[in-house]
Amino acid sequence: MIYLDHNATTAPSPAVLQAMAQTMAQHWANASSQHAPGQEARRCLGQARQQAAQALGCLPAELVFTSGATESNQLAVRGLLAGAPVGRRRVLFSEVEHSAHQGLARSLAAQGVSVGWLPVRPDGGLDLSAAAELITPEVALVSLMSANNETGVLMPLAEVAELTRRAGALLHTDATQWLGKLPFRFDDSVADAVSFSAHKFHGPKGVGGLLLRRGLGFQSPVPGSQERGRRGGTENLPAIVGLATALSGLGDVAAEARRQSALRDAMEQGLAQALPELQVWGQALARLPGTSYLRVGLLAADTVLQRLVRLGVAASSGAACSSGGSQPSHVLSAMGVPREQALAAVRLSLGRDSTAAEVAAVLQGLPPLLRPLLQEAPAAQTCH
Amino acid sequence: MIYLDHNATTAPSPAVLQAMAQTMAQHWANASSQHAPGQEARRCLGQARQQAAQALGCLPAELVFTSGATESNQLAVRGLLAGAPVGRRRVLFSEVEHSAHQGLARSLAAQGVSVGWLPVRPDGGLDLSAAAELITPEVALVSLMSANNETGVLMPLAEVAELTRRAGALLHTDATQWLGKLPFRFDDSVADAVSFSAHKFHGPKGVGGLLLRRGLGFQSPVPGSQERGRRGGTENLPAIVGLATALSGLGDVAAEARRQSALRDAMEQGLAQALPELQVWGQALARLPGTSYLRVGLLAADTVLQRLVRLGVAASSGAACSSGGSQPSHVLSAMGVPREQALAAVRLSLGRDSTAAEVAAVLQGLPPLLRPLLQEAPAAQTCH
Repeated sequence: MIYLDHNATTAPSPAVLQAMAQTMAQHWANASSQHAPGQEARRCLGQARQQAAQALGCLPAELVFTSGATESNQLAVRGLLAGAPVGRRRVLFSEVEHSAHQGLARSLAAQGVSVGWLPVRPDGGLDLSAAAELITPEVALVSLMSANNETGVLMPLAEVAELTRRAGALLHTDATQWLGKLPFRFDDSVADAVSFSAHKFHGPKGVGGLLLRRGLGFQSPVPGSQERGRRGGTENLPAIVGLATALSGLGDVAAEARRQSALRDAMEQGLAQALPELQVWGQALARLPGTSYLRVGLLAADTVLQRLVRLGVAASSGAACSSGGSQPSHVLSAMGVPREQALAAVRLSLGRDSTAAEVAAVLQGLPPLLRPLLQEAPAAQTCH
Repeated sequence: MIYLDHNATTAPSPAVLQAMAQTMAQHWANASSQHAPGQEARRCLGQARQQAAQALGCLPAELVFTSGATESNQLAVRGLLAGAPVGRRRVLFSEVEHSAHQGLARSLAAQGVSVGWLPVRPDGGLDLSAAAELITPEVALVSLMSANNETGVLMPLAEVAELTRRAGALLHTDATQWLGKLPFRFDDSVADAVSFSAHKFHGPKGVGGLLLRRGLGFQSPVPGSQERGRRGGTENLPAIVGLATALSGLGDVAAEARRQSALRDAMEQGLAQALPELQVWGQALARLPGTSYLRVGLLAADTVLQRLVRLGVAASSGAACSSGGSQPSHVLSAMGVPREQALAAVRLSLGRDSTAAEVAAVLQGLPPLLRPLLQEAPAAQTCH
């Protein structure tokens, strides 16, 4: 299989699998128990926190372990909102946040929280002038992803952080797609709170983190004695050890990003040469190194994905086609992309196990399979 | 080691470890991805859900996988409250709920939700006449644990369910301590929503469930496309498979409960004969089979635990003694137990790996270590 769906998830590394198996077998005691096996588990937890904090450039106390980025996002927004000064009750989300995070926004709005949306431009970048108008002194928190999971477009965190600082608001960023793909240190970050998920960088599923700058007003929606009162629940030690192992195993992220960018660019150039109908979204902007979000004319995403399957390639569409109907990607909709184009969106996302040979196989195999289809009526290939 | 802290956590069974390792290595794809490995993961998820639902006596669609009971509790209370009819905004918790769950109650109260508390009697049982007065038509939800984690006392769910039904309220129960220790089927349960955690019954940490009766008004605080919109976040498939494996491996729960009850009763009788200063809380009521919550005169919990360590026994205190001071258990406080007695509380919790030989070792070894201490001034042994 040629796996080009690294933005969806990645395989846990052998080191992660081994560390988890060992922890599950040896350190299964409750890290809150006072007896020796409990204290041994607590020591192991402290070590993993130290290891992860070092890799993340944060203080151990700034790192809250969670069950993954969706929970981290909820924790950040609800917790910082509850801890915000009286009078600040408005939260802004970008229009291209992950659909689960948009669900949280709608859920807050239904409960009476004032929610606003930061628009994007047609190229997928954030509309900064609109942001400047929307980030007012009523705003408690702006939640803006570091990089979009579909287009890979990087969001202007520094500029937005300047706006939130001036307005006295906090900045939360969902860095789920950034972490592991581009260099990151919390002590260099402009954000006050950062979410991430381990399974996006060859760590285990079911574990992630929320980095919370010290001194922030924060009232956890999931209280408990663990994680300094910021996230209740018996610590998932094997997964936390797996997360720390994955972070430590990232290696030279900048060098790997350059390698993936070059591979991705070669893939896009090769496809564009063979298929002049190709459009790549976000290409003019800074993007995640391995992400390519494209359409081949108006060929339905499902059709292209089926041809990719023939080549042994696993990839994803931008549209969520289901038996009951087809929905264009909310990201492309926010960019103003027409529906028929959006339903043609295919995402190819490379990772650290992607090779030049795999890209060459796609470049050699895909165009001949798609060219005949492009000569048919595009309507016949529409997603249904 | 003689492990007598099964209420804190249990060791994952070999079958669980093997199933998880296999799933992590083979089915790491995202179960929401449309490609073949994603669909294989989805099939595996469906199988695990079916397997777990069969063991729990519920419909597969009634089972929501979470990261553990603390999250399940939050999900249940926030989700059912948000979905309750207009005019019903009051939630009742028992005074002996887990401290994390009480934290949620205080957090809701701070956000303006009307929160009330169901008291317990001095014996640790729920005060049903007080409950009858408190469960009024304004109440949206009553959250009452199935069995207390410290005393092991079973709560009168059937009687409270009758009260909630009459008042038009819903009943949520935290069955974290019940599941795996006593027979359970959701289709026989009087509760509308049931929380549990896998690591309490030899499953993995970081995974649990919330059983939600079909047709309930429920608005998830953690939205997302997974779990039918009731809990967002990429499914933690290895842990879910581990949970299902643990449930399937429970065997004859009723027979095992009888065995543990007999062992526990023998332990309590033996200790009482050797140490007339022994008091066991909740002994007059129906309790979890393996739980014994006791004090030896006014010997500080730490002192007794230290002597247990000499015998190779790992157990827990009821009091959360820390370097900064000592807090008596909120459960014992709710029962009206004086502070100096509460600070002497030790919990011995047996499990399916507990043996008669282990109990015999405690009965033989502990009294000789404690008797000399009982003759000293009790103040010298106070928790500090």
